[in-house]
Amino acid sequence: MADVLKGVPVAAGLTDELTARCERLKALGIVPMLATLRVGENPGDIAYETGAVKRCEKIGIAVRKIILPSDAPAGEITGHIREINADESVHGCLMFRPLTDKAAERAACELLDPSKDVDCMTDASLAGVFTGSGAGFPPCTAQACVELLDYYGVSVDGKNLAVIGRSLVIGRPVSMLLMSRNATVTVCHSHTQSLPEITRRADILIAAIGRARFVDASYVSEGQVVVDVGINLDDEGKLCGDVDYESVAPIVRAITPVPGGVGAATTAVLAKHVIESAERFAL
Amino acid sequence: MADVLKGVPVAAGLTDELTARCERLKALGIVPMLATLRVGENPGDIAYETGAVKRCEKIGIAVRKIILPSDAPAGEITGHIREINADESVHGCLMFRPLTDKAAERAACELLDPSKDVDCMTDASLAGVFTGSGAGFPPCTAQACVELLDYYGVSVDGKNLAVIGRSLVIGRPVSMLLMSRNATVTVCHSHTQSLPEITRRADILIAAIGRARFVDASYVSEGQVVVDVGINLDDEGKLCGDVDYESVAPIVRAITPVPGGVGAATTAVLAKHVIESAERFAL
Repeated sequence: MADVLKGVPVAAGLTDELTARCERLKALGIVPMLATLRVGENPGDIAYETGAVKRCEKIGIAVRKIILPSDAPAGEITGHIREINADESVHGCLMFRPLTDKAAERAACELLDPSKDVDCMTDASLAGVFTGSGAGFPPCTAQACVELLDYYGVSVDGKNLAVIGRSLVIGRPVSMLLMSRNATVTVCHSHTQSLPEITRRADILIAAIGRARFVDASYVSEGQVVVDVGINLDDEGKLCGDVDYESVAPIVRAITPVPGGVGAATTAVLAKHVIESAERFAL
Repeated sequence: MADVLKGVPVAAGLTDELTARCERLKALGIVPMLATLRVGENPGDIAYETGAVKRCEKIGIAVRKIILPSDAPAGEITGHIREINADESVHGCLMFRPLTDKAAERAACELLDPSKDVDCMTDASLAGVFTGSGAGFPPCTAQACVELLDYYGVSVDGKNLAVIGRSLVIGRPVSMLLMSRNATVTVCHSHTQSLPEITRRADILIAAIGRARFVDASYVSEGQVVVDVGINLDDEGKLCGDVDYESVAPIVRAITPVPGGVGAATTAVLAKHVIESAERFAL
């Protein structure tokens, strides 16, 4: 049976380290602060917001919650971004996406000060992920995959990595982050032919498709490490990942559970980005 | 024996189309203009500059050549970028890179107006390549690979593509451009294990390593299309690609020669980007 790579210890390890760094910043007179910006009452957004606030409080990061009605005009949204940019006490901004108003979303992404872009909204952060320059911040969930592999001592250097999914939130950025660490990455997607054959050959498999239990036993092989980024509801309304855990876990070497895997580490990565932003500010 | 995918007809096809588009712009009172910015006397830069000027002249694009001594201070370089930004008659800027002065190079890249960034210097263009948004312009050589495959009717949708090399000039951008066209891309590099095994499995192989005749018969298989982006001098001072043409051509379905392959199409792609920029300006 596979080792279970849980996210909670990853988050706990990060939380301890970040709490110490937060105290050092406060000793310098800097209180790290995250501003969250939510438009509407999407339950997923609210759940993530709640988790992020809790994690930040635990570490000592202040949070300013901005909540707008779902029909807020674009000008109101961008007005808040302008305020966040101008306010030196705010070190990071998390805007829940996607917005219904695509033009407002684009305008907000173009407007945000890249130095406060802790979840990869801006061109500067996207370019930083693509080039590996370290500028800006990668998307929190993509970085959470990296932190999880690091925590469990899974080296990616020279390893074959198959990523299923090419979204800008996970698939593409996690591919770039792990390529920067010398993995040989194959990015798979809906047009990929003979997908199970490709994924079976990988040393590490990252599933980020958004389809409940899509990856079954036919997609995996012995010795693999499987990272499941999916968060789906199955037909019975039960939370599950992109991987069919019951059939895959007996085959592979290690696997992340859902819930309790990558998702459990994501808010700690968000907090890490806020602390890093505050530290850059302090320099 | 393989089909030889020459760059000259690709460039000729683009040149005809661009000449017509250039005439339409001139009829609207817009003369498309490229500004080239060269620091020092690197023979490779001079050769590319000469080719670019010739191509532009053929199409009807005006060129303003800026040539600075190799010890030009950073402020002089960025001063020219500011002038290019401010001058409405200039539609594209090609700065030959790398510069010896890294800080000056970075400053120039940060300063250039993204709408004039015809060779992917800016974060906006890099983010556009990464996200597939179409914002900015991809690097000319990476786009030349795409144009060449298009010209010869090589569909990449659903095909397995192996790219050797992860540079920001070729490997990474061409991977993203062809992933946007639904190829399943594996990006290989110096840490890749069992490289020949991976490349033999690909339908399309792009070699962008920068090592003379690195890809020999052991890296390829029947039916493949091989795109050679390398431009190297061998031990005898003879121009050659990253692919050992003599041993590979008898095996594969199609191959680009060096010289006369991708390189021959690159200045036409640069001209295409200048025309596109001028057209966006005209709208």
